[in-house]
Amino acid sequence: MDLLKKRIIEDGIVREGNILKVDNFLNHQIDVQLLNEIGKEFKKLFAEKEINKILTIEASGIAIASVAAQYFDNIPVVFAKKAKSKNIDGDVYTSSVNSFTYGKEYTITVSKKYLNENDKVLIIDDFLAVGKAMDGLLDVVSQAGAQVSGIGIVIEKGFQPGGERLREKGYNLQSLAIVDSMENCAIKFRD
Amino acid sequence: MDLLKKRIIEDGIVREGNILKVDNFLNHQIDVQLLNEIGKEFKKLFAEKEINKILTIEASGIAIASVAAQYFDNIPVVFAKKAKSKNIDGDVYTSSVNSFTYGKEYTITVSKKYLNENDKVLIIDDFLAVGKAMDGLLDVVSQAGAQVSGIGIVIEKGFQPGGERLREKGYNLQSLAIVDSMENCAIKFRD
Repeated sequence: MDLLKKRIIEDGIVREGNILKVDNFLNHQIDVQLLNEIGKEFKKLFAEKEINKILTIEASGIAIASVAAQYFDNIPVVFAKKAKSKNIDGDVYTSSVNSFTYGKEYTITVSKKYLNENDKVLIIDDFLAVGKAMDGLLDVVSQAGAQVSGIGIVIEKGFQPGGERLREKGYNLQSLAIVDSMENCAIKFRD
Repeated sequence: MDLLKKRIIEDGIVREGNILKVDNFLNHQIDVQLLNEIGKEFKKLFAEKEINKILTIEASGIAIASVAAQYFDNIPVVFAKKAKSKNIDGDVYTSSVNSFTYGKEYTITVSKKYLNENDKVLIIDDFLAVGKAMDGLLDVVSQAGAQVSGIGIVIEKGFQPGGERLREKGYNLQSLAIVDSMENCAIKFRD
């Protein structure tokens, strides 16, 4: 997706430790117009798939998934929660995620009410790198007996193993921009 | 907003401790079509105000703010972060919030890059009760030297002091539904 790649080049910041900061338009400040284009692109890529629910994970995934849902007939968005609040009931799917970004292990939680064996799920997230959060989401979908219709990622770090591993497993994984290297702060995309 | 009140009556669940769960359409599963109506309503209520940025707080606020921004000429959304990640740079505004929902104190963080003295901010959030999170957001806006053009809340708990306190302070606070009591699980709205 050229508009996205252009924006990553213009506003993305490469930090030590293979960190790509896109706080300017995706992870802290949100460019909703860009999200609309991202939503349209996901719809194009998954147009043939049967999808009745979008699953994502807080926090940045929520904006992307909510705006994208408008292009999928306003199907419901469910976001996995990272923190346990008083407001979550007991009957939940949980999965443990070892996060690189947050430097710790956390548990993701999805209420059984909002995911079940009739669901055909598009999973959307902002980043895919090692794929730990995605594994947690896939685990939750599997526990629910639901079907994964596709995985839509905004930015994939192609030099990390998550994308290849998930494609080898047979998932229909579509990333709008795949960064193949960030050496010397020069972002190189896969064609 | 009648559509919202109807939905709260139909799908809201009252729990002990004055908790109103709206996980079915706002806080866990998201009804994007309803969010569109909420966005239009906020635009109507703040049509006369000069607004160039929407500020919210993760997680549930993000969906509401992002969809609403489409009705405000796609102005940027900035969401305050609750967790410190490796990806946040040092130059930030912070404020401490004592949360009822999470039963602990947490720090909210906004990068100085995305909020400054030229900003005229609409603050949007899902709930207003005691107003602790809102105080944190207002503190951050004040630190930035920005102006608060308005506060848009989806559900205000009118029997808790946040709303009255903020209106007395002179803020243009608009809540789409004000719950005045939830005794015996019967939700009563203010007219």
